[in-house]
Amino acid sequence: MTESSISYTDVLIIGAGPSGLMAAYWMARCGVNARIIDKRGTKVFTGQADGLRPRTLELLDSIGVVHRVLHEACEAAEFTFWAPSEDGRLKRQEQHPIHDVNNSPFGNCLLNQGRIERFILDAIRDCSDLEVERGVIAESLEYDEALENSSDAYPITVTLRTLSEEDANPSPAHGGSGGVRNGLFRSNITPDDWDDLIRKSKERPGNVETVKAKYLIGCDGAHSWTRKQLNIPFEGSTTEHIWGVVDMVPITNFPDIRRVCTVETEHGTLLIIPRERQLVRLYLPLQVVDGISGSLDRSSVTLDMVRQRAKEMLRPFDFDFKVCDWWTVYQVGRRLASNFTKGRIHLAGDAIHTHSPKAGLGMNMSMQDGFNIGWKMALVAKGVARPSILATYELERKRTAQMLIDLDRRLQPLFVKQQQSDATESTAPSNGKETLIDVIQLSIAFANGYACHYGPSSLVHKGGENIAANLIPGERFPPVKVRNQADGQAWWTTRLFKSDGRFRIVLLAGDLRHKYQRQRVEAFSAHLASAESVLQRYRLEGEKLDSLIEVITIHSAPMREMDFPDFPEMLRLFDQERGWAYDKIWSDDDCFWDRQCTGKGYETWGVDRIRGALVILRPDQHIGWVGNIEDVDEMTCYFEQIFQPPQKSVNMEGNA
Amino acid sequence: MTESSISYTDVLIIGAGPSGLMAAYWMARCGVNARIIDKRGTKVFTGQADGLRPRTLELLDSIGVVHRVLHEACEAAEFTFWAPSEDGRLKRQEQHPIHDVNNSPFGNCLLNQGRIERFILDAIRDCSDLEVERGVIAESLEYDEALENSSDAYPITVTLRTLSEEDANPSPAHGGSGGVRNGLFRSNITPDDWDDLIRKSKERPGNVETVKAKYLIGCDGAHSWTRKQLNIPFEGSTTEHIWGVVDMVPITNFPDIRRVCTVETEHGTLLIIPRERQLVRLYLPLQVVDGISGSLDRSSVTLDMVRQRAKEMLRPFDFDFKVCDWWTVYQVGRRLASNFTKGRIHLAGDAIHTHSPKAGLGMNMSMQDGFNIGWKMALVAKGVARPSILATYELERKRTAQMLIDLDRRLQPLFVKQQQSDATESTAPSNGKETLIDVIQLSIAFANGYACHYGPSSLVHKGGENIAANLIPGERFPPVKVRNQADGQAWWTTRLFKSDGRFRIVLLAGDLRHKYQRQRVEAFSAHLASAESVLQRYRLEGEKLDSLIEVITIHSAPMREMDFPDFPEMLRLFDQERGWAYDKIWSDDDCFWDRQCTGKGYETWGVDRIRGALVILRPDQHIGWVGNIEDVDEMTCYFEQIFQPPQKSVNMEGNA
Repeated sequence: MTESSISYTDVLIIGAGPSGLMAAYWMARCGVNARIIDKRGTKVFTGQADGLRPRTLELLDSIGVVHRVLHEACEAAEFTFWAPSEDGRLKRQEQHPIHDVNNSPFGNCLLNQGRIERFILDAIRDCSDLEVERGVIAESLEYDEALENSSDAYPITVTLRTLSEEDANPSPAHGGSGGVRNGLFRSNITPDDWDDLIRKSKERPGNVETVKAKYLIGCDGAHSWTRKQLNIPFEGSTTEHIWGVVDMVPITNFPDIRRVCTVETEHGTLLIIPRERQLVRLYLPLQVVDGISGSLDRSSVTLDMVRQRAKEMLRPFDFDFKVCDWWTVYQVGRRLASNFTKGRIHLAGDAIHTHSPKAGLGMNMSMQDGFNIGWKMALVAKGVARPSILATYELERKRTAQMLIDLDRRLQPLFVKQQQSDATESTAPSNGKETLIDVIQLSIAFANGYACHYGPSSLVHKGGENIAANLIPGERFPPVKVRNQADGQAWWTTRLFKSDGRFRIVLLAGDLRHKYQRQRVEAFSAHLASAESVLQRYRLEGEKLDSLIEVITIHSAPMREMDFPDFPEMLRLFDQERGWAYDKIWSDDDCFWDRQCTGKGYETWGVDRIRGALVILRPDQHIGWVGNIEDVDEMTCYFEQIFQPPQKSVNMEGNA
Repeated sequence: MTESSISYTDVLIIGAGPSGLMAAYWMARCGVNARIIDKRGTKVFTGQADGLRPRTLELLDSIGVVHRVLHEACEAAEFTFWAPSEDGRLKRQEQHPIHDVNNSPFGNCLLNQGRIERFILDAIRDCSDLEVERGVIAESLEYDEALENSSDAYPITVTLRTLSEEDANPSPAHGGSGGVRNGLFRSNITPDDWDDLIRKSKERPGNVETVKAKYLIGCDGAHSWTRKQLNIPFEGSTTEHIWGVVDMVPITNFPDIRRVCTVETEHGTLLIIPRERQLVRLYLPLQVVDGISGSLDRSSVTLDMVRQRAKEMLRPFDFDFKVCDWWTVYQVGRRLASNFTKGRIHLAGDAIHTHSPKAGLGMNMSMQDGFNIGWKMALVAKGVARPSILATYELERKRTAQMLIDLDRRLQPLFVKQQQSDATESTAPSNGKETLIDVIQLSIAFANGYACHYGPSSLVHKGGENIAANLIPGERFPPVKVRNQADGQAWWTTRLFKSDGRFRIVLLAGDLRHKYQRQRVEAFSAHLASAESVLQRYRLEGEKLDSLIEVITIHSAPMREMDFPDFPEMLRLFDQERGWAYDKIWSDDDCFWDRQCTGKGYETWGVDRIRGALVILRPDQHIGWVGNIEDVDEMTCYFEQIFQPPQKSVNMEGNA
C-alpha cells in the first residue's frame, strides 16, 4: 500500500517537549546531523508545567534566553502556609523563602511551558536549520547490537509515519463551563493513543519513512513508546491519587491568591501558584468528593467539579472564576524506569520518571535530563568525544530522579489527608512528625538545583577540597558575577560559560601583582602553548585552538591595577581577523554600578585569593576536576579519558 | 499618466527612524488610525546611531523591550581619558563615571540603531497591525488652515509615490578596502536624493496615492522634506567639521579599546566606543589630513583614509582592522529649526535639530521627541484630549534641543584642535579653562535624562515642593523599585507605569497603620467613587473606569503588616470577569531577595512616609502635578484642561 523511503541521521529525538528540545538544542548548537519528531501537530500553548527552578534558569542563561523568561514570568520567592486556626477559620500561619538568594543569580519563576518551549525553539533556530517535525509518529524500532561498537554504523532503524492533520491535532474535550479548552488529551489519565494513531495512519498511503540513526533519544513522555519498545520496566507505586489542576483568573477575597501558598483543609491541601498574565494555578485533591480511585472515567470530571472543590477548600473566603485558560485532571503515579539507557538509545524526561507536580520540579528535571544527555551525545555523534562518556548519563540522572521520587513520596502525605495515603507506601522516609516546612527546608538545595550529587566518573574526578573548598567535582560551578578586564562589564558566570559544546579550563589565576604568582601563571601559559597541551593535542584540523576547550581566566586583583595586555598571550588568544580575545580575561572585582557584583567570588569558591586554582568545567558548567595551577599532568589526564585520540578523522558537517 | 487614489488617515508619519517609530508606537498602542512611510526599502541594519542613555532605556522599559536591549548591548559606565604625558607618550589620565547609579535603573548602553528599531517595531506589532510602508516617498504637501479648528476635518493632503525597488534600495558605495558596506548614502554629506527619487518615480505609472490626514508628523531627518515644504528655517553654525566614523573589530594593543575613551592627540581627539559583537566604533576628526572644508567630495574619502587616521592617532600603539561592519563620513552642522510645529503638522528628530554625535545623544533626543509628540497626538487624534495640548510639544522639546546644541557647542573645541575651531562661534559658553571632564560632569543630569526642564503648561502645573521635595512637575517621576502588595514582586516604576496612553493618579498613600492617615485615604477613595471624580466624569462609554486615568497606590507600611483587601475598593477596582486588580497596590518596602529594592522610595521622592502625597503622572511618566491627598479639586482642575468635555462622542476605532 505505502511507499517507504530510507534516510539517515546521526541522532533521532522522539518527542519535542522540554527534555527533547533541550537535547535538540545541543545538536543544533554543535552542528550535529539530527532530527526531532513529535506526534502532536502543534506545540503546547496553554497549561502543562509552569515551575522553573534556579538551576534551570541558569541553563537558560547559558543558552541565551533567560532574559525572555524573566521578562514574562511571575517570580516567587516565598511559600506561605495557611491552615485552620483554633477557631477553625483559615489563617495565614508562616512564610518561608523558597530559595537561597546567595546561591544563584536566579530565584523561582512561574511561566507556562509553552513559552519555555518557544524560547528553546528560538535558541535552536538562532544556530541551525533544525526544525521539529510535527505530526510524525514512530511505528517500529529495531536495534542491531552487533553494530553498537562501530562508530560509523547506524544500528537503529525506526519507521516513521506522518499523521493526518486531524489525528495530529486532537480536539480537546470540553468542561462543564462553556467550551473552556482543557488538557485532558495530554493528561496521564487518558489512555495512550500511540497505537491508535499508527493504526489510523496505516489507512492512508504514502506517509511512511524508514530512518536509520546512529543514536536515539526517547523523550516521549510517561507513556513512552520508546521505553516500551525496549521493554524497560517502569516501576513504582500502584496507588494513584487523583488531582485537578486549573489555570484561571481568580475572583476571590483570599488575600494571598497571588502568592505561592499551601492551604491545609479537612479535604487535603490546596496548592496555589501565581502566574503570568493574571493567571493563578490551583492544584486540588479530587478523590474525596468523587470517590474516584484506580482508573478514572475521564468523562465524569468537569471544570465545575474542580471549581466546586476549590470553593469548598477556600471557605470561608469567596472564590470563583470566569476566565479559565486550561484545566486537567491527573493521577499521581510515582515511577522510575529501571534503565535510562540501552546501547545507543537513551530515555529522558517523563519517559524515565513520573511523580506528582507538587515539588514543582517536573519540567526542571526533564530539561536537565535533556541537557545532560544532549551535550554528551552531540560530542560523541560529532566524533569528538569517546562513546564511553554516554554511560555517565544514567549514572548522573538516575540518582537525581530517585531523589526526586523520594522527595515526592515525602511530600505526598502532607498534601492529602493522612488516612487516605496508601499503607503500601510504608517505605517512604516520612514519619508522623515531619511537616511540609521541614521537607521543603531540607530539600531546598536539591529542588533548586544548588546540589546535584553527580558521582565520580570519567567526567567527574573527585578531589581538590584543599585547593577549592566549595568547588566540588560533580556539582555545578557556583555562579558569581565577575568583571571583564577589557571593558569592565559585569557578567554572571552562568552567561559567560555559554552552552556551546566546549569544555573549559577556568584559570583562577589569583593575584598577579605578586611576582611568584605571576611566574606560576606564566609557566601554566607556557605549558598551554607547548605541543603537549590539550589545546594543541585535540585541536581539530582547520579549527581554532579553542574550538574544543576554552581557557577562561578569572584573576583576583583589582581591575584597575591590571591591564588587559598584562596577561600572557595564551590566555587571550590572538586571531588574525579579530585581534585579541577580550572575552577571556575576567576579574573577581566589585563594581560600583552593579550591586550584584561583589568581588567575593574567590570566597564563594573557597579559593585562596593569591594562589588561585585550576578548574575544568564540562560543557554543562559542572565541575570536572580541581587542581593547582601546576597540575597540568592531571588536567591532561582528565581530557585523555574524554576526547578521541587526535589522529582520528572527524566529521564536522552538521546543521550549523 | 498615473492613476491617483484617495485615502484617509488620522495621523501620517513620514520617516521610520527612531523618532518616527517612537511616535508610531503610540498610534499603535492607543489604537489610532495611522500610517507610517519611509523612503528607504529596508530598515537600518548596520551603523548609524548607537548610544542609549538611561532615560531612553526607561522609555524602552515602559514599552516592554528594555530586556532585549540589555541582553544585546554593551554597557558602559565610565569614561577614560587618554592624553600625552610629559614624555609625549599616550597615557591613561583619568576615569569618570558616565552616569549616577542612584538616579535610574539603567546605565549607558551601546547598541546598533538597527536593533533598537527592531525592538520598537516588535512592540508596535505586539499591539497593532500598523506596518511601516517602505519605499514610499511624499511628493507634495498641502495644508488647509481653514480646516485647522474643525476636529473631524482633514486639513492635510499629501501625495505619496511608491519607489521602484532599485530606487528604494541605493547600493552603498564601496570603500578602499575590498567591498565593505559603508553608510555614505545615508550620510549628511551626501546630497539629499528626495527630489531625484520623486523624478524617477514619476517615470513609472500607477504608483501614486493621495492621502488626506488630520495630523502629520515629519520625522524625515536632517534634510527634512516636510520642514522644507513648511518653509521652516533651519538655523545654526555654518562651520561644518568633517568626521569619520567606523564600526570595526580592532586589532590593537591599546589596552582600553573596549572602553569608552577619548584620546587627545595633536590631530584632535579620537572617541572610542565599545559595542556589541566585538565591534568598536571610532569617531575621528578628518579635516586636517585632507584639508577638506565646506562641502566634501564624497568620492575622495575612503575607508583606508579613515584607517590611516586612526593609526596615526593611536600611536605608539599598534592599530588596524580587517573586519569592518560599517563606516561613513559626516559633517558637524549644528542647527535648530525655528519652529517645531505648524498648525497640525509637527516635526521631530533630526528634522529639527542636528549636531555632532560626540555627546552620544542624537538617537536619544530623537526618540524622546517622537515619544513626546506621539502620546499627545494619539490622545488628541482619538478625540480624548484637547488639541491645545499639542502646543506643549514645541515648548518642551525646543528647550531641550537648544540645551543639546549648547552642550555640543561646548564639546566641539575639546575634540578638535583649538586653532581649528571656528572664530565665528564665539557665542559658545566655553572658555579656555573648560575641560572635557568639566563639561561632561556638568551635563551628566541633562545628557542622561535625569533632568528635562519642561516648563509650566496645561500639562505641567508647577508647585508642591513642600509636599514632595523631589517630585518636580515637568520632570520624570524618579524611578524606584516597589513591591506589589498582592504577590510581593519588585518592579521598577518605569515598568509599572507602562506607556499605554493613560494618565496616572499615583496615590502615595503613606502609612495606613495610622488611623488618621487611613481616614484620609478612605476619604480620597470615596471621592474617586463619587460622580464628580475625574474617573467617572471622563469615563468613555463602554470602557472601564480606568481606561483614561489609572490610579496606582504606593503605600509606605511594611508589606507584611498590610493585606491586599485592607485597601479601599476604589484603589483596586473590581472587574466582573477578572476579579480584583492586583496590579494597583504597591509598597515602598525592601525585599530580601532583590538588592535594588531598598524601601527608600519615599525618601527618594522627598515625601513624608506617614502623610504621603498625591501625584499626577502624564502618559510619559512626567510629573504633571503634585498635591496633598485632600487636594482633589486641584487634581480635577488639572484634568479639566486636558480632556475633552465628556459629552463628546468619541471615535475609538483604530489599529489596535
